[in-house]
Amino acid sequence: MERVCFLLRVRPDRLDEYRAHHRAVWTEMTDALTATGWRNYSLFLADDGLLVGYLETDDFAASLAGMEDTDVNARWQALMAPFFALPDGERPDTGLVRLDEIFHLA
Amino acid sequence: MERVCFLLRVRPDRLDEYRAHHRAVWTEMTDALTATGWRNYSLFLADDGLLVGYLETDDFAASLAGMEDTDVNARWQALMAPFFALPDGERPDTGLVRLDEIFHLA
Repeated sequence: MERVCFLLRVRPDRLDEYRAHHRAVWTEMTDALTATGWRNYSLFLADDGLLVGYLETDDFAASLAGMEDTDVNARWQALMAPFFALPDGERPDTGLVRLDEIFHLA
Repeated sequence: MERVCFLLRVRPDRLDEYRAHHRAVWTEMTDALTATGWRNYSLFLADDGLLVGYLETDDFAASLAGMEDTDVNARWQALMAPFFALPDGERPDTGLVRLDEIFHLA
């Protein structure tokens, strides 16, 4: 099992809208995440727009690739793209920075 | 149950030493964390020194206060203090920044 932590940057002037979207994530989207192995998945947001994702999965590469194959993910990422500070052409699900786990206590 | 995410800053010139300490955390320290309710606790480190903590607890304030009462925590935090970029007088366990959870999928 992998414990994954990743970072993204939300535009500081759009934090409220971004939070609002995440209080109402489409059921189709959460179903797709579950079907592709995303478990115990949380997003945490800092006041300056730093977004931290945490999840558990048997295989993160497979979970990312599984979502990549879904139409709902393409629609969700298109909706989210304007909220992120990302290089041109990157989507939130391809521009994330993964961090190394250096300690774990069960 | 609370899912907690917090940030700290490790000095970029001391990342390797910090990692090494966390491959050999004292059993007395992990026992104290468990006894004070820290569960599924991971630390993730970015190349620039950003440290992300994730844990689950029934009551984070109580878990922090519980560690505060232990001698082993005082010794561990004194050992760790030189690795952090913190305001004068702050310790790693008192200078952390907690982030809001804005989404969760079980």
